[in-house]
Amino acid sequence: MTLGGILSGPPAIVAAGVSVFSDALRAQGAEVHDVDWRPPGFGSAEDLAAVALDPRRAAANRTAVERLMAAGSVLVDVRPARDVIGLADRTILHAGPPIEWADASGPLRGGLIGACLFEGWADTVEEAERMLAAGEITLDPCHHHRTVGPMAGVTSPSMWMWCLEDPVHGGQAYCNLNEGLGKVLRMGAFNEEVQTRLRWMRDVLGPVLQQAVRSMSDPLDVKSVLAQMLQMGDEAHNRNRAGSLMSLRELSPAIVAVEGWAASDIAAVLKFIGGNEHFFLNLGMPTAKLALDACRGIPGSTMLTVMSRNGTEFGIQTAGTGDRWFTGPANTPVGLFLGDYGPDDANPDIGDSAIMETYGIGGFAMAAAPAIVRFVGGTVPDALATTERMYQLTLAENPAMAIPIMGFRGSPTGIDVLKVARTGWLPQINTGMAGRVAGTGQVGAGLVQPPQQCFEQALKALAHEARAAA
Amino acid sequence: MTLGGILSGPPAIVAAGVSVFSDALRAQGAEVHDVDWRPPGFGSAEDLAAVALDPRRAAANRTAVERLMAAGSVLVDVRPARDVIGLADRTILHAGPPIEWADASGPLRGGLIGACLFEGWADTVEEAERMLAAGEITLDPCHHHRTVGPMAGVTSPSMWMWCLEDPVHGGQAYCNLNEGLGKVLRMGAFNEEVQTRLRWMRDVLGPVLQQAVRSMSDPLDVKSVLAQMLQMGDEAHNRNRAGSLMSLRELSPAIVAVEGWAASDIAAVLKFIGGNEHFFLNLGMPTAKLALDACRGIPGSTMLTVMSRNGTEFGIQTAGTGDRWFTGPANTPVGLFLGDYGPDDANPDIGDSAIMETYGIGGFAMAAAPAIVRFVGGTVPDALATTERMYQLTLAENPAMAIPIMGFRGSPTGIDVLKVARTGWLPQINTGMAGRVAGTGQVGAGLVQPPQQCFEQALKALAHEARAAA
Repeated sequence: MTLGGILSGPPAIVAAGVSVFSDALRAQGAEVHDVDWRPPGFGSAEDLAAVALDPRRAAANRTAVERLMAAGSVLVDVRPARDVIGLADRTILHAGPPIEWADASGPLRGGLIGACLFEGWADTVEEAERMLAAGEITLDPCHHHRTVGPMAGVTSPSMWMWCLEDPVHGGQAYCNLNEGLGKVLRMGAFNEEVQTRLRWMRDVLGPVLQQAVRSMSDPLDVKSVLAQMLQMGDEAHNRNRAGSLMSLRELSPAIVAVEGWAASDIAAVLKFIGGNEHFFLNLGMPTAKLALDACRGIPGSTMLTVMSRNGTEFGIQTAGTGDRWFTGPANTPVGLFLGDYGPDDANPDIGDSAIMETYGIGGFAMAAAPAIVRFVGGTVPDALATTERMYQLTLAENPAMAIPIMGFRGSPTGIDVLKVARTGWLPQINTGMAGRVAGTGQVGAGLVQPPQQCFEQALKALAHEARAAA
Repeated sequence: MTLGGILSGPPAIVAAGVSVFSDALRAQGAEVHDVDWRPPGFGSAEDLAAVALDPRRAAANRTAVERLMAAGSVLVDVRPARDVIGLADRTILHAGPPIEWADASGPLRGGLIGACLFEGWADTVEEAERMLAAGEITLDPCHHHRTVGPMAGVTSPSMWMWCLEDPVHGGQAYCNLNEGLGKVLRMGAFNEEVQTRLRWMRDVLGPVLQQAVRSMSDPLDVKSVLAQMLQMGDEAHNRNRAGSLMSLRELSPAIVAVEGWAASDIAAVLKFIGGNEHFFLNLGMPTAKLALDACRGIPGSTMLTVMSRNGTEFGIQTAGTGDRWFTGPANTPVGLFLGDYGPDDANPDIGDSAIMETYGIGGFAMAAAPAIVRFVGGTVPDALATTERMYQLTLAENPAMAIPIMGFRGSPTGIDVLKVARTGWLPQINTGMAGRVAGTGQVGAGLVQPPQQCFEQALKALAHEARAAA
């Protein structure tokens, strides 16, 4: 059709949104095409209104944000999971919402098999698989035990855990020790290399760290390390370089002074910590967990307290709905791959580490860590834009987690289910990628978002609570 | 005068620049006011032309930049200055171009007095001052001995030095060990606190580091640390946090394994290094020195090889003019002050540390270190703009020194005297500020530029060389 043709014909009307406009036009005899369009959000108008108009919401979210920001985190001990949380024999903790063996993806299965071998519950992979399939091993989410675990999050009774305490609210939180990158249990690898490392961590690293941490007159202030990391190019989820170095600096004088160990063991401990750029992650995660656990059970609050994945499902919890999980199928991250691995090798999203984004850093603070795009993909402008966008989903800016390149603006903090529903934008997470096949290990790192379903369910539940309270 | 008056009167003509225009107007009877204006650069047209048209220049600068970028830096030893460079008794090295006691500013005098006390050449401050004033102590620039020293740069025979080697060009460069911040010799303090620290550095730190460094099978690659620092929020002049941590990580396993020392000494060494965020500066400076010394004596090159200050004068050297100094009075930095100190307490610019900017980082890479504005002053946009501006003064971008926030653009590298003269823009240096009064120590940190005179002289000398070679 020529331009003249367009202008000389009768108008073709396309109407989007509420029907009052198209109805009025039709009443005048015009031809109207309705388009099923709505603002880019989700949730029913009734649920959105119930939550938005909940009179408890503003104060509840203020309380939640205040508790999140006020929470501190100091390292108080290092102990085996058996002692810390009374983890029973033949029980294994895992990342994400509850799951059974039958539904577990490759890397979670790999981690569980590896833990059975490590604990001596099985002598072969086949025996471990049989026991797990037969339900002879109890599986339980880390989050149900004040614990978080990166990737598979597999934690068995003999594994040592960092024990952190929130001096403000008095909570405790725990996380196992980071094994490094590549062929590691948390990525689903379980071969002899993995087992040898786990045994060394059990027999040398854990005990040495316990002695060192217990000897420190000034306990490590992990929250302060997190704040400094954001000034040093880390976002504290997939870039923990500065944090790991600062941890080494703080711990090393105490490590050197422990008694009863050969100098070669001490040197090996220092080398292991110094050689692992993600060593700090397992201190950062329980720090975020402490702050978010301080926000549990605030009726009317629409703030997230958990985002977590078990490799099959993504689950969230909110401050207003207690320990209830809202889940949906986990997406698969898009990013950069190690060696010859490619997109077909990647497992869906897995790990409790999205607690960092729930806390307001990690993917939310990518502007502080432009170099991370070389690890997780994307461009530097993307990293800046991601942080800018996350302010639209959050309740506050955390001045303790300041981002220098943004003029020291506080990181976007406190994810609001209502804002997510209204904008239709989902939280941005950056994450490691485990191999889809059990035993593979890490295949890359990338970017991922939660499934919208989690938030749809959470909105419904919050609306239900709001109506019940009205 | 009203607007009507302006428009109704005869035109008033103001002419700037070449006289051909105003001459033509005068020939027509117009009233012309000449303004002594020229483009914002400096240097005579003849000198600028001689240098610009020097047929050797392009190739010479290409060679200089290639050598600068190709140079490597590994840590090969730690030895007392007496042994490393054969520093004679009653001789003290200092920062900047040559200077005598009579012209020395407070912090340099303080450092020299402190060194005389430390070496046992004098028992009292008065005796040290008398000896120095009487010329009984020989003063010599660090730069004349393949050496660089931050701030006063005072290096006496019993002080230990890092010994670095360029595996590409075979050069060596040296620097003393960093004492930390506050009351320190390099800032002009010399009291008992300073002396006690210097003795501990002589008796424990130096020997332990020597044993550790000599035991390392993989020597520390200092250039690689510099490259990583720029990804971690350091610009490697006044922010060396990540670099200091990485040095600690690399050195600590070897430090722990040295024999013949008490565990308390080893722990003290680790704590000293870990407690000094500027520890790395004295490794970064000789790395820059190695690269720039590899560019000495390239006839026709207009690239700087040295920018350095003795607290009274600022001096530069160029690749095309060998070891000749071009000097001018040092400016006083503008910045942020510690405690109750203020602008009146600041000494003019001092130290060899501007070798970092000469190498293309430090003030030239401030975009990589936005958090530094909290230490040296200015705003985050200033820091980004500074790096952008420095590309106008430099010959190349160094891909090894990539700045993430600028999309991994290489840092502006190789300061060109001709570009400085043409633009009239001066290199941006960020620097520590020493107290004006001997004995004070550090009073702050800030931003400073060289005096234009250095570059005017250098341009003249380069023009002279160009004419002589024609």
